[in-house]
Amino acid sequence: MYVGEPEGPPRARILTIGDELLSGERMDGNSRWLARHLHGLGFQVAGMESVGDDEPAIAQALTRGSSGADFLVVTGGLGPTLDDRTREAVVLAWGVRLRTDQGILAELRRRFEQRGFQKLPETNRRIALVPEGADPLMNERGSAPAIWFHPETARDGAFFRADSPPVVLLLPGVPDEMRHLMAEVAEPRIRDTFGSRFAPHSTRILLTTGIPESELAGRIEELLDREGDEDVEVAYRPSLRGVELGLRATGPETDLRLDRVESLLGPILAPYRYDTDGLDLAEAVGRRLAARRWTVALAESCTGGEVLGRLTSIPGSSAWVQGGVVAYSNHVKRDLLGVAEETLETHGAVSEAVAREMAQGVRRIVPARVGVSITGVAGPGGGSMEKPVGTVWFALAHDGGCRAEKVRFPGPRAEVRERAGQHALHLLYQAVAGEGSQSEADP
Amino acid sequence: MYVGEPEGPPRARILTIGDELLSGERMDGNSRWLARHLHGLGFQVAGMESVGDDEPAIAQALTRGSSGADFLVVTGGLGPTLDDRTREAVVLAWGVRLRTDQGILAELRRRFEQRGFQKLPETNRRIALVPEGADPLMNERGSAPAIWFHPETARDGAFFRADSPPVVLLLPGVPDEMRHLMAEVAEPRIRDTFGSRFAPHSTRILLTTGIPESELAGRIEELLDREGDEDVEVAYRPSLRGVELGLRATGPETDLRLDRVESLLGPILAPYRYDTDGLDLAEAVGRRLAARRWTVALAESCTGGEVLGRLTSIPGSSAWVQGGVVAYSNHVKRDLLGVAEETLETHGAVSEAVAREMAQGVRRIVPARVGVSITGVAGPGGGSMEKPVGTVWFALAHDGGCRAEKVRFPGPRAEVRERAGQHALHLLYQAVAGEGSQSEADP
Repeated sequence: MYVGEPEGPPRARILTIGDELLSGERMDGNSRWLARHLHGLGFQVAGMESVGDDEPAIAQALTRGSSGADFLVVTGGLGPTLDDRTREAVVLAWGVRLRTDQGILAELRRRFEQRGFQKLPETNRRIALVPEGADPLMNERGSAPAIWFHPETARDGAFFRADSPPVVLLLPGVPDEMRHLMAEVAEPRIRDTFGSRFAPHSTRILLTTGIPESELAGRIEELLDREGDEDVEVAYRPSLRGVELGLRATGPETDLRLDRVESLLGPILAPYRYDTDGLDLAEAVGRRLAARRWTVALAESCTGGEVLGRLTSIPGSSAWVQGGVVAYSNHVKRDLLGVAEETLETHGAVSEAVAREMAQGVRRIVPARVGVSITGVAGPGGGSMEKPVGTVWFALAHDGGCRAEKVRFPGPRAEVRERAGQHALHLLYQAVAGEGSQSEADP
Repeated sequence: MYVGEPEGPPRARILTIGDELLSGERMDGNSRWLARHLHGLGFQVAGMESVGDDEPAIAQALTRGSSGADFLVVTGGLGPTLDDRTREAVVLAWGVRLRTDQGILAELRRRFEQRGFQKLPETNRRIALVPEGADPLMNERGSAPAIWFHPETARDGAFFRADSPPVVLLLPGVPDEMRHLMAEVAEPRIRDTFGSRFAPHSTRILLTTGIPESELAGRIEELLDREGDEDVEVAYRPSLRGVELGLRATGPETDLRLDRVESLLGPILAPYRYDTDGLDLAEAVGRRLAARRWTVALAESCTGGEVLGRLTSIPGSSAWVQGGVVAYSNHVKRDLLGVAEETLETHGAVSEAVAREMAQGVRRIVPARVGVSITGVAGPGGGSMEKPVGTVWFALAHDGGCRAEKVRFPGPRAEVRERAGQHALHLLYQAVAGEGSQSEADP
């Protein structure tokens, strides 16, 4: 085991390298993924930094990143081209020399020959350069290996001109290669090195929709102040689709204590909660429909096909989505869905009566067990005193009848559409409740 | 004018603050937006860093961020709660004192009273704390003001215990507030301070779809090596929807030289290019349809409504999208779109014949001037030797006839759907070519 600071969880720092990050051309998804992954393993992430493809700048950042960190994870700058300066920056920062790793070189040659080339290009030999004392980790998804430096097991005694140097992991910047190398190839070494210092913890995610973060947090905090567990943290992650609750327990019996907090929150969450392995309510809806062998059809007006798009994005959805109609114009509502001209004239397209006829109509023509409709004013135009922007009517029709409801959503056009789509899916989710939780709307 | 290092463009650094960034809970969109914005103004962005809501850590990062930078932009930690530690970190880093700004305090009181509250809560008074010598910039979209420090115009002579201190801008972390304060409120001061050092430059974005980055870059680089302009850089930004080309010219007569490079690239780009103010091809399609007063209807199978969703996401789209049918099952293809049972049996749902009948069918029932259909194998299941996953048939029907084409897209389900949707929109875009660029497919 590597012994750095003995107190608390080990501290990690992240350094990402690339000119495209500093010009804002590319979003730095690697930092976020690494932060989440390292946090999940049990590290405290102490900081993240990004610098360009510039040798002195990388070297300075390596030096800064080493200070006060137990583990420094670096991505980018390991490719074959002369823009890739991470190896040279390591030389500059820590005074270590580079050697050509014969194992990596042989593997690169083998791969080149397999692809029918005669000779490895000279530039590609750069990929096999590894700092003395460090171990290359073979990359099955690309050419550049990851590089693992361990100050205690390094073969070169002069390794690292630094006080209490961190363990360093250099990773290529291509996201798919980086994730594979981090989560699969390097992970055993990371656990060997730091595992005994990770605080035992468990996490759980509870998904909700239809309640604002402030309202939800207010109710939960009030309950947890009285009956909570101070070693179970609750994080709120709001989005247009709802609020994701992240529970994290430390100390003994973490799973039992998560169970206790989850059941404590049960009554507050029940009307808003949904369960799924992924994070998408559409997947949870699909699972319930599939379990009951039910099918659904949609008639979308203001959401314009986005709900159908989300449902059909789930692999295997053809078993429970028949399809539907995007009725953006009144013509389509009337001619295809069979909404009465009189209903449209008397009540307007955004009305309870039209929503009901749309849900019943789509269920009849597709046909499917459940029909769901959405008609509203997404904005920016089209609002009125009586029906302001954000007003949306929903209906859900089945053999047992049809129910409708109205919601007014805040925000600009895209948000109204997103929130309305999520609301429609949640209505459907509740209506297709499984055994033991049948609601009155159960078809 | 503020004189730091006189050579080259001024150097900016970005510091974002928040525990949620280090745990990977939230993507750091602020860094990227700021990097792009600062780069666009004419700064060289020298580095970006993120730290948690921890006073000593923020103070260290402020000190590091000041070194070698002309402009340091900081976001986060300015709210009213005790978690917000940026002000205190400024005290710690630079030995400056905090004062209560009476103007900000009065404004906060006024807003509170307007909302019907009697008294400003004590915690909210924190928002009016400003380092001595610094100017608060009023935030119209939220409560916390931005804070602007200028080492030369600071009223307190003892301001900043640092050599060649940078100009510092502290911004709240809420993205909408941050962007508004940066791009509108602080911008005149930024231009006053650094404007004379910005290298004159112009940028232009050219959008393409339907050609891989490597192929496009190969053709362009070959041409530019012969006839290009060495002061016009070309950046390639690939996504599932296509490749965005970013041109950036420096030196004299930047616009003229961008025009020259753009027309040089014209023949290469023509089959793949589209124009829009936003970045979405759906918007470009809508503009062309609107200009010709044409309407479109879609019949989507494997894309499941996503193309309709993209088209209807454009404000005002009801003028040119009638709606359409998501025909996920063969029932819907047959009963609603009128695809012949025999066609389905003989050719299968993913075939030229079915694509044609779908496009003609949806145009008839909706009705609309142009009908577009998409039917394919998105995967992961459903592929065969003859029709492997990724095979998609498209058809476009109008008064003048109907044409169909097949493409095989790479990637998993979500990518096939995204690429197929973009391809359908591009077919439509080309078919609705405006005056002077009528193609043979012009309806």
